[in-house]
Order: sequence, then structure tokens, then C-alpha cells
Amino acid sequence: MGHLYGGVEGGATSSNVVLIAEDGTIKAKVDGPATNHWGLTLSGGEQDEAIRALVQLLKERFPNLSENYCVTTDALGGISTATDTGGIVLISGTGSNCKLVNPDGSVIGCGGWGHLIGDEGSAYWMSLLAVKIVYDAVDNYKHTPFNICLVEEAMYSYFQVSNRTALLTHLYRTFEKSKIAGFCRKLAEAARAGDHLSCHIFRRGGQELARHVVAVLPHVHKSLLDGKFGLPIVCVGSVWNSWDLLKNGFLEVLKEVKQRPMAKNLCKFSMMKLKCSSAVGAASLGARHIGYDLPMDYANNVDIFFEHCFKL
Amino acid sequence: MGHLYGGVEGGATSSNVVLIAEDGTIKAKVDGPATNHWGLTLSGGEQDEAIRALVQLLKERFPNLSENYCVTTDALGGISTATDTGGIVLISGTGSNCKLVNPDGSVIGCGGWGHLIGDEGSAYWMSLLAVKIVYDAVDNYKHTPFNICLVEEAMYSYFQVSNRTALLTHLYRTFEKSKIAGFCRKLAEAARAGDHLSCHIFRRGGQELARHVVAVLPHVHKSLLDGKFGLPIVCVGSVWNSWDLLKNGFLEVLKEVKQRPMAKNLCKFSMMKLKCSSAVGAASLGARHIGYDLPMDYANNVDIFFEHCFKL
Repeated sequence: MGHLYGGVEGGATSSNVVLIAEDGTIKAKVDGPATNHWGLTLSGGEQDEAIRALVQLLKERFPNLSENYCVTTDALGGISTATDTGGIVLISGTGSNCKLVNPDGSVIGCGGWGHLIGDEGSAYWMSLLAVKIVYDAVDNYKHTPFNICLVEEAMYSYFQVSNRTALLTHLYRTFEKSKIAGFCRKLAEAARAGDHLSCHIFRRGGQELARHVVAVLPHVHKSLLDGKFGLPIVCVGSVWNSWDLLKNGFLEVLKEVKQRPMAKNLCKFSMMKLKCSSAVGAASLGARHIGYDLPMDYANNVDIFFEHCFKL
Repeated sequence: MGHLYGGVEGGATSSNVVLIAEDGTIKAKVDGPATNHWGLTLSGGEQDEAIRALVQLLKERFPNLSENYCVTTDALGGISTATDTGGIVLISGTGSNCKLVNPDGSVIGCGGWGHLIGDEGSAYWMSLLAVKIVYDAVDNYKHTPFNICLVEEAMYSYFQVSNRTALLTHLYRTFEKSKIAGFCRKLAEAARAGDHLSCHIFRRGGQELARHVVAVLPHVHKSLLDGKFGLPIVCVGSVWNSWDLLKNGFLEVLKEVKQRPMAKNLCKFSMMKLKCSSAVGAASLGARHIGYDLPMDYANNVDIFFEHCFKL
């Protein structure tokens, strides 16, 4: 048997492992429960100290598991699944995060600071925005031009409470980020049924996600913009299933930025989803770490769901 | 010995108890640790079910403690210490809250929903706003016209960390609302030393606190506006020690609102602090609950620190 390259995608809700042979064929795939935080190619994995401790532990407890280890951020695993030149990884699931990976391997990040000071455009963020708009409207604290009735009812129904005071238990005493984020699914349903407030919330989400791209745009290496897909944006996370609802807000921000000199080289961008686990990219990163280029069929790993060319 | 009326102010950081004689003289005062949440005249005490359970427990465990109990919101204790006609209680300490108490005893609230969806204008909110502005500026995510250097350094120094990633521990794993709120004291120092970003944050805080007043303004009983103090605003919490920094933002919002028809009867307002614990007002509420009007020296209980008459 030749060498095997393992890749692990550790996530907040589930994890994936693949084993890939030297010729690039996937020999084994396993799904498992959440491994965040601390794991291979996962958010938070950037801290050198924690990485050293983790690798040490793996070597001690599983001395025959692997000869070499490479631990890095989940964004790098995602981008390495989609392309070998780099691009932007834009994560929007329970939380949100954005990483630009340049062709030279350097990484520039924006966001990913968690639900108290980040997560803009994530499911958690949109859910809490909806809740906040309802509370503020009922309080006469901040005016909303939208009718809140449908979202307010959906909120009570989703959290199984009858009023705003009772909902506080879910926000504080029994706080679960994923439970709050789950309300976003109801908002997507309401938006598709034509509820204006829900549509507004997804438009806001789209805007914030685009602003992550704008934040890293000045650092994008020029060669990344010149490929046939233009700037590649690898979209990770379940919120992208609602691209139809995010799209207008997302485009608004990028079209506005295109007017500025800083975006003069941005002529096209492509939004793509991974068709396989970013554990595949993780395996290729691990291989490259020890000097081997694992053959990858990048075109087969992604699904380009949106392309946009700016008018000249 | 005549009847004694007890008042308890239960807070998130400390609590006070007073015993008052029939003639209004204070017979005893005791300070103690935090009793929130669930206690007498404290935030969260509005839920009828919890109140019944609490009173039941007190009667069982301390059968000789008191013949009668009256449990209500902390705002009512505060306002009853300052006046017997009503007014607005505007709390800004670790968190924030606003209650309008009308002469008929009815209460209209705005805010007080906790740090995830409320607390605007509180110490916690201003601290987190400062942290967020720094993170967003470094990420190139949101532009700030202010120099962030001083606030960024103060933030690392206060939390004893060296970078943004290390600070996340304080925001999540070892989250303590009061620890984060404590950073606001450093912001006040920086603002007084002339730091523009810190000044901006307090101006924003002042604006948000004023918006709480604006939210309840349509419900203010006309007679509350006609007294010699105009609309009485009882300010509770340590953030009011920085009134000099909040003032411009606070006035901006109220002056803007004064232009609108809804504020036509608002000619004057007075900001006052309590000079004694709101446990005193709690005792008078308890007395009134069983039909006795405890003599109160309201003028002696408050310190009016700001008055504003709108130009006609």
C-alpha cells in the first residue's frame, strides 16, 4: 500500500474525515459529531501554542496514527478543496467568517470573532436581528418600516413561548447559539412566502457578507482576479442555501464598491459551493506540507452557483 | 413599637435594605451582596408567577419576618424614592433600562432586555461598542473616522491580553458581563483626557439613553410635564457619573425630537439622582400596598444635576 493522506474538517455541528491515496482517489470517508474547538483545519486552530499541544497529544495517544500533522484554519481547508491558486472563503452557517488566501499562501481575515462582536451575515446574526427588530418595534425604541406581525408570531412559535419576557430564557439562561441560529430557517420560509421584514433581514445579511469581501479586497493578489472565474468566492455554510434571498443585498454592496478606485481590477467574481467536504482540501494541504502534490480534480469539487461581470 | 416598613433594593452588584417607622424616620440600613435575580423590587421581578413563588417561600422560611409583601420592578422603587407623582426612571449601570411610571401607577417600559438584544447606553454596551469598533477597524470591515490606537491599547491593558484573539477568552469562555462593563471606566478616563473615539462612544451612549426617553414619551401623562421640574428623569446607575460625557448625545436626540408634534408638550425636563437607596421608595410602596401613606421627604431624597428648558 502506498502513502495515505488524511484530511479532517472539524466543525461546530459535525466533522468529516477522508483518506486519500497518492493518486488522488478517496479511499475512505467518515462523518462524525462536532469537534470544534481545537481540531484539525478548524476555526480557532490558528493559535500556534494550541496546535503544538494538539499535535503532541495526538502523537502520544495515537503513536501509529500518522507520521506527520498539519493543523490550520478551516478556511484554508475550504479553499484548498476548490482551487490550488487561492481565493476567498466566505463562511456563513451558525456563525460567519471570511478569509482571503493568496497564491503565495498568505491569509488575510475579516470577521470570525464570534456572536458578541462578529458573525455578521450568519444565521445567528440574522435570527438575532429579527428578534431585536421585533423587541425594538414593540418598545417604540426603533422604528421599522416593515410589518413585524409575521416574524413576531414565528419567533414565539419557534421558541415555544408566548411573550418577549418568556423568550429571554432562551437568550440567556439556556442560551444555545445553534438554537437561536435555527430560527433563521423560519425567516427564510417567511421571506419566500413574501414577508417583507424577513426579506429585509436576508438583504441585510447579504450586505454584511459582501462587506467581508470588500474588507479583504485591497489585499487580493492581482493574479486571483485574472482567472476565467474572476475572483473566486468559496461559500461555505448552510446560509448559502438562501442565496436567492441574500443576492440583492450582496450585489448592492459590491456594485457600490466597484465605483471606487480600490475595486478597479475587480471585473468579475464567481460564487461557488464545495461539492465535497473540505477535508479533501485538508488532505491536500497535509500532503503539500510534506512536499507531495496530491492530484486534485478541482472542477469536480465545486459547483459555481453564481457569476457576475461588472459593466465596464 | 409602631409598625415598621421594610424596603429592599436588590441589584446585580449589591443590595440595600431599610426599615422605616410610621413617621418616616429610617430606623435601620443594611448593605449586602447581589440578590438579583429574583428579589424584592428588582429587575425581572415583574413576572407574576415568580413573585408568588418568592412570597410563598419567604412566608414559609421566615414566618415572623413580615406580615405583608409587595414585589415589583426596581424602576418603581426608584421613582417612589424621588416622587409620589411618577416620572421616568432611566437606568444605566452594567446594563440599561427605562420605565415610565404615570401618576395612575401604570408602567410603560423600554429596553432592559439584557446584553444580547438590549442594554443600549449602558457600561457594557459602550465597552463592547469600543471593542467592536477596534476589531472592525483592524479588519478593514467598518471604517471609523477616529484614531483607535488609545482605545486599542487601553483594551489590551484592561483585559491583560496582547492581541484580539487572546481577548476572545474574556468575551466567551470566561464571559462576565460586569468585567466587560468595567472597561467603560477606562473609556471615561480616555474621553476626559481628550481621546476622540472615547468621546464618540459616550456621545453614542447618551443618544441611546435619550432614545429610551423618546420611546416612552407618547405615553407620558400630561400632568407629569406640568410640574416645576418639567418631566422628571430619575437617573440610576454609575454611568450617570459620566453625565459630562453623555450630555451632548443626550441633548442632540431630545432637541431633534422636540421638533416633532409628539413632543409639543415637553417644555422642560430635569435629570436627578437618588441621594438614598431606592429601598426607601420600596418601603413606601410596601406601605401603600397595605393602605398606609408613609411620610416621605422627596426633595431631600434627590439631587437635580441637570435641567433643560426647550426654547419656544
